Amino acid sequence: MLRDTHVTLAHGGGGQAMRDLIEEVFTAVFAPPGMEDQARLEDPRLTVPGARLAMTTDGFVVTPIEFPGGDIGKIAVCGTINDLAVGGAEPLWLSAAFIIEEGCEVALLRRVVASMAAEAQAAGVRIVTGDTKVVGRGAADGLFVTTTGVGVIPPGRDLAAGRIRPGDVAIVNGPLGDHGAAILAARGDLALSTDLRSDCAALGHLMEAVLAAAPGVRAARDATRGGLAAALNEMAGAAGVGIEIDEAVLPLRAEVRGLCEILGLDPLYLANEGTLVLFVPPEEAPAALAAMQARPEGAGAAIIGRATETRPGRVEMQTLFGGRRIVDMLVGEQLPRIC
Amino acid sequence: MLRDTHVTLAHGGGGQAMRDLIEEVFTAVFAPPGMEDQARLEDPRLTVPGARLAMTTDGFVVTPIEFPGGDIGKIAVCGTINDLAVGGAEPLWLSAAFIIEEGCEVALLRRVVASMAAEAQAAGVRIVTGDTKVVGRGAADGLFVTTTGVGVIPPGRDLAAGRIRPGDVAIVNGPLGDHGAAILAARGDLALSTDLRSDCAALGHLMEAVLAAAPGVRAARDATRGGLAAALNEMAGAAGVGIEIDEAVLPLRAEVRGLCEILGLDPLYLANEGTLVLFVPPEEAPAALAAMQARPEGAGAAIIGRATETRPGRVEMQTLFGGRRIVDMLVGEQLPRIC
Repeated sequence: MLRDTHVTLAHGGGGQAMRDLIEEVFTAVFAPPGMEDQARLEDPRLTVPGARLAMTTDGFVVTPIEFPGGDIGKIAVCGTINDLAVGGAEPLWLSAAFIIEEGCEVALLRRVVASMAAEAQAAGVRIVTGDTKVVGRGAADGLFVTTTGVGVIPPGRDLAAGRIRPGDVAIVNGPLGDHGAAILAARGDLALSTDLRSDCAALGHLMEAVLAAAPGVRAARDATRGGLAAALNEMAGAAGVGIEIDEAVLPLRAEVRGLCEILGLDPLYLANEGTLVLFVPPEEAPAALAAMQARPEGAGAAIIGRATETRPGRVEMQTLFGGRRIVDMLVGEQLPRIC
Repeated sequence: MLRDTHVTLAHGGGGQAMRDLIEEVFTAVFAPPGMEDQARLEDPRLTVPGARLAMTTDGFVVTPIEFPGGDIGKIAVCGTINDLAVGGAEPLWLSAAFIIEEGCEVALLRRVVASMAAEAQAAGVRIVTGDTKVVGRGAADGLFVTTTGVGVIPPGRDLAAGRIRPGDVAIVNGPLGDHGAAILAARGDLALSTDLRSDCAALGHLMEAVLAAAPGVRAARDATRGGLAAALNEMAGAAGVGIEIDEAVLPLRAEVRGLCEILGLDPLYLANEGTLVLFVPPEEAPAALAAMQARPEGAGAAIIGRATETRPGRVEMQTLFGGRRIVDMLVGEQLPRIC
């Protein structure tokens, strides 16, 4: 029985205290299959001829650990699911590794774990294996979570940035920058009172709906660190195409626009955690857009631009004032520890 | 081009600086397949009817980051391979996620990455995907690495602690406690000059050799945090058997024995990073032992005890002095941040 209210170094030591923490806080909620050192897994989709296994990993160090619209656990589950989904993979299984600073509240851990379990269940994914380590005070900042996801790419599906062709249409599923803006506001350094919430959401079901409606989708990316600008630059570079977007049609909440104006931030570089951009041949764009808009996480979907033959590797924006500007990648980022 | 000698927050920001760090330090060495957000993988062994996928994850926070016999990268690769191998899985792919403290030397990162790549290659495993995050000074301790491993369990193979039966023989592949003792000495708090080296090693090839020679192996565990004592207690509990070991035959280096005597430590609880314990029916014990001894990482293999019907769930040791004592699990551990 775990009686402690705070995590101590003993909880990381491999002994009875660690077992109590793991069993009560983690495995009681995640209910992983079996109790060996590894999960042992089967899924008939993996053995279909031509199916491929997708694997991705992400470490999460977001501060604050809990914020409007999510917490480090929700973001870890959603972020890893999204990395699988934008590649056309159906997410199957997640691992979760926790690095905990001595003194971390057990109640906080329980909330994070509950949030992960709920998000995984909604996405139809299982958290099948995990690990906990404890480090002394000052050797970490509260809690870090690393999730790894395994999924299956059905035969014949091959989303890749390199497949984008001039003329393809760029679509996003919703407003830009909500996550970055919400984190910034939640840090409390600014005396701003806002209703901003992170867009943190799992996009596996959305991607499946889009791919069913528009099987010709070329590529998708979730616009996390570095924002939409980083995702588009990476895609332009990989495909050797130019990308033009139109500022007038970029979906943006009034609160995010306002925050950016006050602080001199550019929403194109703000991180998102439930926002993807995809490219689709023009004839399939209406179907892709409609499939997105039919789902809550795509309700704010919009066509934002297209791939061009001119200026390969470059992203340009038609501004509100009728000018054009290059949307470059930042060297660093506007905000550290956004995810 | 990466010109910096130390990691800054900009290297975690999702922009050009991050891309430079990732491309030069990580992907140039790991050479993952493709440049999408996810690895896309195929292996014919995964589609054999009855094959199962094995998945395991571990976070590594060992201090010091480099120590005699290894570093955090080697231990991360070996530890995850071993968690797969002791379950009977053939390791296939690893992910690696790095949480880096601002100010970490780029040269240190390069050494850790080189060490991971070398160890993975020797084990026949590929590091296929990864992630880096940077946190400010004081928000982490140098470098944390989380690895996740995926492997395949061939059809019909089912190692599990619950399968151990009274009469089964316990075998370890080499001396106990080398890793814990080497880390303790490397921390330099003791004015001890020793030749101790961590036993850090990947045991995938060893397990395959043992399973070929002794297909009846019931279960195996790597004796990491909590040492041999934790591994045996866990196995005794899962199988509902007693376990008896004999102190006189436990393989132990003179230096480790000496260090334990000076410091009042018990080598049964010292962590290992290349040491496993397995249980095998008595008629297959000679073959399993010989298969281990034929390999360098099993050269010091020894039969150390057996499972019994008496005292289910308990581990007992016949001591050097002819007495018996219970080998319990510790509540915490003797040393924090051992892996």
